Amino acid sequence: MCLDSVLSPSIIAGMMQKTAAVLIIGNEILSGRIKESNLGFLAAALNECGVKVAHARVIPDNETIIADTVNELRAAYDYVFTTGGIGPTHDDITTASVARAFGVPLLRHAEAEARLRAHYRHDESLLNAARLKMADIPQGATLIDNPVSTAPGFMLGNVFVLAGVPVIMQAMFDNLRHHLEGGSPTLSRSLEINLPEGTVAAAITTIQKDFEKDVEIGIYPLFRQGELGATLVLRSIDAATLSAATHAAMQAVTALGGSWKEI
Amino acid sequence: MCLDSVLSPSIIAGMMQKTAAVLIIGNEILSGRIKESNLGFLAAALNECGVKVAHARVIPDNETIIADTVNELRAAYDYVFTTGGIGPTHDDITTASVARAFGVPLLRHAEAEARLRAHYRHDESLLNAARLKMADIPQGATLIDNPVSTAPGFMLGNVFVLAGVPVIMQAMFDNLRHHLEGGSPTLSRSLEINLPEGTVAAAITTIQKDFEKDVEIGIYPLFRQGELGATLVLRSIDAATLSAATHAAMQAVTALGGSWKEI
Repeated sequence: MCLDSVLSPSIIAGMMQKTAAVLIIGNEILSGRIKESNLGFLAAALNECGVKVAHARVIPDNETIIADTVNELRAAYDYVFTTGGIGPTHDDITTASVARAFGVPLLRHAEAEARLRAHYRHDESLLNAARLKMADIPQGATLIDNPVSTAPGFMLGNVFVLAGVPVIMQAMFDNLRHHLEGGSPTLSRSLEINLPEGTVAAAITTIQKDFEKDVEIGIYPLFRQGELGATLVLRSIDAATLSAATHAAMQAVTALGGSWKEI
Repeated sequence: MCLDSVLSPSIIAGMMQKTAAVLIIGNEILSGRIKESNLGFLAAALNECGVKVAHARVIPDNETIIADTVNELRAAYDYVFTTGGIGPTHDDITTASVARAFGVPLLRHAEAEARLRAHYRHDESLLNAARLKMADIPQGATLIDNPVSTAPGFMLGNVFVLAGVPVIMQAMFDNLRHHLEGGSPTLSRSLEINLPEGTVAAAITTIQKDFEKDVEIGIYPLFRQGELGATLVLRSIDAATLSAATHAAMQAVTALGGSWKEI
């Protein structure tokens, strides 16, 4: 449950939507060796909390680049979520880079160390210097629990530092979402139509102008069984306005001789 | 074939590696509705041309943001590749935004228009104002052929503007790769090992230091049949150095009681 989901709808409707940037850290994503798969999850999960992902970036394992990017993004967006680079090996430099961004030292965190010691209690020799590094957290940071593999993430200011492995990142997100103060979730409705983009473009442009401030309309090509169609996606934080725009789009498609199916 | 793949190996080895940024444009990626799938292709295809993707960014359909980001990235990297936003609808604003970034007007391009007219020759009424917009190209740009759906991409300075639909983007890339001047492709070797990251971290850190300037080593966790292992990925532009580092890693894994398999 997100922090403000207990507020009444009228209060939520009056709140501005919060924004987030997702910072994906790792040479393996930029090289194409590993397919990025955290952005989609974070976009959907954050939207449920009324936080809109407005920017995403993929950068290499480079301390200066990470620190500079964290500072740029945390100044520009309400929240920053980083993924990747918090494990035990030499290329896991996200934690040190975030400490540098905030100008604070890395300190051995007693609770994080205790969790690692409990995790490796069957063979303490496994808790070597490399693994103990995962208990070093920037001064002032709060741990984010990792129920999958123990080594925690952390939050510092408006920056949330998460693992890169999707199953761990998702478990961490469930343990931080109650800290987020969001606005209204964006609602969406989607129509599959049997007319290509170029045929409906002018009509949908008119509808977009009519609902300029309140509804965002996207049109995407759709290839199915050799036929060209399109998907219309309408988004708004207000259900009634969204419904009015969606009906206008349905009528426009029908007027052009096409048909639509809500999906 | 990339431009310099006809050069001799000794000339290639002396060339610096070129860098690229990938700029993914579209609200539908940031909302999580569509999964990003072009970065991996571009990373691999550019590496074949000796161009390293060093940065990627996902931004919304916003003209100011697109123009500012194009200007930031084209100054910082040898090449910029944009995907998305060059279709016929109101949310396709990449072309106009790139023109703004370069401070040049959009002009109706005779060749692009001729191609669209040929494409719609069976029913000229389909070539409405929205579709004709796809023949408006920034002044000074060179067309990039689109064998899938006719409407071209374009290159302007060091910026390559491509479609977002993967099959079209990939076809466009095949039509532009001969324009790229790259360096040596990055070679890679990968080892799957049956020891977890934390166990090999110190030994691999030593090898990374030994080969600091010439080899980049990544270590990633591997979960298989309930067992924790790791994948080592070693990268270099020099095959002999890469081989030496890979053998050092193999020996280190063996010395720690583990086994490796080259994949």
